[in-house]
Amino acid sequence: MIPEISSLEIAHLASGDTLSIQVYKFRGKNPGQKAYLQANLHGAEIVGNAVIYQLIELLSELDETQLDGEIWLVPACNPFGTNQRSHHFSSGRYNPYDGQDWNRIFWDYEKTEEDIAAFAKTQLDLEPDEIRKNFLDRILQKFQTLRQEIESPSGVPYSDRYRYVLQSLCLDADYVIDIHSSTNRSFDYLYCFQTREESAKYFLLNYGILLNEYDGDAFDEAFLKPWLALELELTKLEKPTFFDLESWTLELGSGMEMNADSVYRGVRGIKNYLVGKEMLKISGFPLVQTASQKVEFFRKSHIKKYYAPRGGLVRSRVLLGTIVKPGKLLYQLLVLNKTGEPPEILDVCAERGGIVFDLSTNQAVNQGEYVLGLLERAESGAANP
Amino acid sequence: MIPEISSLEIAHLASGDTLSIQVYKFRGKNPGQKAYLQANLHGAEIVGNAVIYQLIELLSELDETQLDGEIWLVPACNPFGTNQRSHHFSSGRYNPYDGQDWNRIFWDYEKTEEDIAAFAKTQLDLEPDEIRKNFLDRILQKFQTLRQEIESPSGVPYSDRYRYVLQSLCLDADYVIDIHSSTNRSFDYLYCFQTREESAKYFLLNYGILLNEYDGDAFDEAFLKPWLALELELTKLEKPTFFDLESWTLELGSGMEMNADSVYRGVRGIKNYLVGKEMLKISGFPLVQTASQKVEFFRKSHIKKYYAPRGGLVRSRVLLGTIVKPGKLLYQLLVLNKTGEPPEILDVCAERGGIVFDLSTNQAVNQGEYVLGLLERAESGAANP
Amino acid sequence: MIPEISSLEIAHLASGDTLSIQVYKFRGKNPGQKAYLQANLHGAEIVGNAVIYQLIELLSELDETQLDGEIWLVPACNPFGTNQRSHHFSSGRYNPYDGQDWNRIFWDYEKTEEDIAAFAKTQLDLEPDEIRKNFLDRILQKFQTLRQEIESPSGVPYSDRYRYVLQSLCLDADYVIDIHSSTNRSFDYLYCFQTREESAKYFLLNYGILLNEYDGDAFDEAFLKPWLALELELTKLEKPTFFDLESWTLELGSGMEMNADSVYRGVRGIKNYLVGKEMLKISGFPLVQTASQKVEFFRKSHIKKYYAPRGGLVRSRVLLGTIVKPGKLLYQLLVLNKTGEPPEILDVCAERGGIVFDLSTNQAVNQGEYVLGLLERAESGAANP
Amino acid sequence: MIPEISSLEIAHLASGDTLSIQVYKFRGKNPGQKAYLQANLHGAEIVGNAVIYQLIELLSELDETQLDGEIWLVPACNPFGTNQRSHHFSSGRYNPYDGQDWNRIFWDYEKTEEDIAAFAKTQLDLEPDEIRKNFLDRILQKFQTLRQEIESPSGVPYSDRYRYVLQSLCLDADYVIDIHSSTNRSFDYLYCFQTREESAKYFLLNYGILLNEYDGDAFDEAFLKPWLALELELTKLEKPTFFDLESWTLELGSGMEMNADSVYRGVRGIKNYLVGKEMLKISGFPLVQTASQKVEFFRKSHIKKYYAPRGGLVRSRVLLGTIVKPGKLLYQLLVLNKTGEPPEILDVCAERGGIVFDLSTNQAVNQGEYVLGLLERAESGAANP
Repeated sequence: MIPEISSLEIAHLASGDTLSIQVYKFRGKNPGQKAYLQANLHGAEIVGNAVIYQLIELLSELDETQLDGEIWLVPACNPFGTNQRSHHFSSGRYNPYDGQDWNRIFWDYEKTEEDIAAFAKTQLDLEPDEIRKNFLDRILQKFQTLRQEIESPSGVPYSDRYRYVLQSLCLDADYVIDIHSSTNRSFDYLYCFQTREESAKYFLLNYGILLNEYDGDAFDEAFLKPWLALELELTKLEKPTFFDLESWTLELGSGMEMNADSVYRGVRGIKNYLVGKEMLKISGFPLVQTASQKVEFFRKSHIKKYYAPRGGLVRSRVLLGTIVKPGKLLYQLLVLNKTGEPPEILDVCAERGGIVFDLSTNQAVNQGEYVLGLLERAESGAANP
Repeated sequence: MIPEISSLEIAHLASGDTLSIQVYKFRGKNPGQKAYLQANLHGAEIVGNAVIYQLIELLSELDETQLDGEIWLVPACNPFGTNQRSHHFSSGRYNPYDGQDWNRIFWDYEKTEEDIAAFAKTQLDLEPDEIRKNFLDRILQKFQTLRQEIESPSGVPYSDRYRYVLQSLCLDADYVIDIHSSTNRSFDYLYCFQTREESAKYFLLNYGILLNEYDGDAFDEAFLKPWLALELELTKLEKPTFFDLESWTLELGSGMEMNADSVYRGVRGIKNYLVGKEMLKISGFPLVQTASQKVEFFRKSHIKKYYAPRGGLVRSRVLLGTIVKPGKLLYQLLVLNKTGEPPEILDVCAERGGIVFDLSTNQAVNQGEYVLGLLERAESGAANP
Repeated sequence: MIPEISSLEIAHLASGDTLSIQVYKFRGKNPGQKAYLQANLHGAEIVGNAVIYQLIELLSELDETQLDGEIWLVPACNPFGTNQRSHHFSSGRYNPYDGQDWNRIFWDYEKTEEDIAAFAKTQLDLEPDEIRKNFLDRILQKFQTLRQEIESPSGVPYSDRYRYVLQSLCLDADYVIDIHSSTNRSFDYLYCFQTREESAKYFLLNYGILLNEYDGDAFDEAFLKPWLALELELTKLEKPTFFDLESWTLELGSGMEMNADSVYRGVRGIKNYLVGKEMLKISGFPLVQTASQKVEFFRKSHIKKYYAPRGGLVRSRVLLGTIVKPGKLLYQLLVLNKTGEPPEILDVCAERGGIVFDLSTNQAVNQGEYVLGLLERAESGAANP
Repeated sequence: MIPEISSLEIAHLASGDTLSIQVYKFRGKNPGQKAYLQANLHGAEIVGNAVIYQLIELLSELDETQLDGEIWLVPACNPFGTNQRSHHFSSGRYNPYDGQDWNRIFWDYEKTEEDIAAFAKTQLDLEPDEIRKNFLDRILQKFQTLRQEIESPSGVPYSDRYRYVLQSLCLDADYVIDIHSSTNRSFDYLYCFQTREESAKYFLLNYGILLNEYDGDAFDEAFLKPWLALELELTKLEKPTFFDLESWTLELGSGMEMNADSVYRGVRGIKNYLVGKEMLKISGFPLVQTASQKVEFFRKSHIKKYYAPRGGLVRSRVLLGTIVKPGKLLYQLLVLNKTGEPPEILDVCAERGGIVFDLSTNQAVNQGEYVLGLLERAESGAANP
């Protein structure tokens, strides 16, 4: 297949230059679902670009009969973030202009004044496909009002314009995959919405974080939350309905690094997922291990982050993936002073047990800066998620 | 009076150095109210430091019989912000570590799981003073749980530690004044909470923004919102109660500038307010013009900000304080390109009428960057606030 | 005249986007000199873009018989600098990647291993025009070796690539004008090379700084210094020769501001200069005041900068253009502390007399940060420059 | 031994807070040489702090008879750099205020107008010890004039003040060791001045870079260059003289990391060096391997840095320490575009052979950003240094 490639301007700069995103659209012979994938929304998180590069290579080699529906791919989806530098480092997690996290700016239909409960009541006699079409129409109609604001003389902040372009590509998708990495250093895992756990296995990753609470206005949330809300309202009305719509954030490896293993796992998982979703037909897929794949889920509320109790230099820190018991040493802090005392070593131990899943890239910390993160298992007796 | 001066450490840095805030406490001969004033929470907004300096001078010259109660003053209340530089400029509005706005981090009792409505029901037979004491006890008790988190091995992010120190100074105050300036360029005005409009006149400023909506977790909100919520609940229970607690954000002048007029107006207004509140006794105060002072209030939701519709250079912009009619030219944008066209001029006109109250310091703008702000008057027929 | 407009790519970014500069070339009917003008090399210094815009308007309205030779114009000549933001401010004086000042990166033929003295000896029998042609050939030949480095597998730092593009446009020009502004706040003046003082009057500015010493690798220096060196060598060989080549840095107004007066003076001066150089024929020009225009020159080594002796807040500072006497108050510093003392006021007075020509935009200063600059007159008895 | 610990203020900040450096001085029972060690001059280069911590521990356990002379230790010698953050990263290589590299600001006596050649001529009849004393007096005398500038009303830029404090600690030392790390990722090596190669073996590192050219105004240069210049002048005057003065920059590991191996090697090498210089007496030291230690030296001019020929994402890069042959693949670049083309892979091969000694931390690069560094061996036939 040869993709249709189109560029969309996202920013016109003071210098007269422009920044764009480029979309690679693969369309199969037969109609079907639409998958939307993007990478590098945060500037330092580059692994997904190589994943998308390999997917473009892969899809280009396939025959159009091997794809039902269409797959849209957007590498480097946030040029401001990707190109931002502070010294040699990629500081592109926040917009340097207004401090906003690039992944907390998206438009969430559920947060508008629209009444999803009232809508649900009007749909009780309809088939799921009709309900879905009607709800999508509503979302798209509301979304179009954003364009008026963008084109008004008073304009809108850049992030409002940017999100409009990005979300206009995916609001009608069936499956959305947003490829991130750790800002710091991590292993590969995914974020999963509640009630979508079953599909997670296709990605063939060992760990998942279950979104039992939300950050708010993240890309994955903005896509799926309205639909989850509608499902809930229909269930309340005793018309339980499930839409085959999914949204995933994959966390592949570490910031500023192009880890080859993470790229491999990302490509393998996405390929397997798209076959699992019956969009792609590839010999040997879904991989045989899919059936037995166990994803260990941790509640998002059970992520425990450790912050430096004093300023200092981190040493003797536990390794990624270590399973620690309560009270075990997590790291030592070499603490300096300007009060005429010798430097000292401070031991920081685990409050509770868990798996070390994230480590700060920077081992110099001011008081209150981030050192590491644990995934804490649920209390015994309770199922983990 | 000689103030008691104390320093509180707010951050221990990787280098072993520390940052502190210094509190100047003036205590009158007789008991009375407590006023808490701070300045420079955002790094570029320095005018308040000079205001506090002059208040220290003024109070030092007074006799302790001229003060009932106590006045606490904290200049440079956010050393991280004050000292932060990017090239020669003060970029200290956001924490460069996590992108957070330094004035959106505060602890708001109303947002905890505490049930203010339920509390109100238990207080129906009590006098306002007793209710106030009971509610303050609740707030302080809850606040103390933050200390445990701070002292836990897992620590807390810096902003949690910082807000704890700052709010521990003011939670039991009667009057809180947080002195800001525009990030950009502005005239002097204040933010006023609904139901506290009457006291605003003491500050002798011509314009006020009425908080008919909140930014969330700002310093002034964090102090007063729980009390407003309690007043509301008591009113619902047919026991309308009004506590003499007030919280003000003064906006004095422009960022990075020490405008002498703004300093003068800040000192005059605060002095007049504290006399008006019967804390200070100063000959000639309250000033005679206080009685006739008219503050024109604009609803916060009626602030209209203009963002650049294209990247470019701003020219021919209206001046601060201009009253514009709908359709009038606000500014021109010199728009460059890299597509082989001549540069062009784009006119941007007012969508609706209003007063120009804020102008971007930087006249180079990427698309979606801020250019100016208008205060829009309410529709005719409606009272302005 | 209609300009030829061409875009030159200067940077391909990690995201796949590119940055370019756009050149507007006006060519007269008759051959003649070449003038090269650029603006906004430092990100905050935007006035020159409006100057160039008005020059494009002006030249477009002229007939091609009114221009002898050609005029090349490059607005926004450094997109990285123009678009760079830290909070709302233009921090684009230094490359955030490597800390280099964007105007200290240029290629200076005089600093290569080429021997200008030896070359001069070979030219003693030639006419100035021939010498000029021969020397320019040498410069251009050497310059082309830079291209090989740029295209080598090991590549070159961005600034090497960037300067190559920019200097390739101007090395063969006769007159180079680089339009800057103060990083901070200033009035309008120019930088003038020694021996070129006579032409300065055409710009109709009252003040000039004479380059009796160099910063090194600045754009204006990189163009003219080799020619000044050749003139010197020829003079040593008793063949005094003067080439009609000039290089000017105009300093128009303040950073981040589009001051209309500065734009006006910039356009007027450049127009007058180009007529004075007999490139343009415009009725009424050169302006009648040119003949009597006095430029007061100050030696570059007589610029005196004042830096904060303590951290603090600047107040009561002298105004731009004030002529101060030795010992006169320049500014006061409000100095805070964390040692339990009251704040204090520190007076800073002039070490020697001079004209206040530059003021820091930011009135908050850490110890050793810039507060203001004076142009000091030469000692009595000596001519000022 | 118990060290004398003293704090020196280096900066008073706008907020009223101060930054200091803390010096740990160990003094032996018997007089002898003075060694000065500092760490963390660049903000991200933290390994040396742990090295100094271990040296403090070690020296504290020694008896004062085991030290002849004195050892001064300064961890976190640049608090501005150590505490600087951009997002989670240590961006403290450049001063964010003026773009200066913190290790290119030091005062170099050789660059003053003092005439070392003339001085040498006056010393021909003297013993080396007397010459040394006389020259040091000259240096110190000149250095004291800096203090006058610092204390003048016009003040000095922060870096002038800072360097004064730091250099006042070491100008009279015999041995200076400045502990750095790579900004990026590297193995352990050292910088060595020409004629001091013999002592390098004590540090027990395998690689050294020989300073056959200088960066200018670096800390190690500022200390030793005047003495090297004096040695050269005396040699020219046929009085070859060698002073036992040495200056080392150790490069231990990678930026933002506290690599335990690098800490170990740093402590071992410094301990061994100080014993080798007969300042310390420690059983078992100098280590037996010292005698046979071979340091492979590379000329500084033979460092070859590779910069991205296009913007892109680095993948398949060679590992640290790899010995590459000419033409061998060094890395691949995944190059994106916004022109409607598929992404592509660009191979970058070695121009010449060498050892891969440094890798960019960030694998996302704009065009002209740094990717890796090679140490190139001298041409066959020539000795390596």
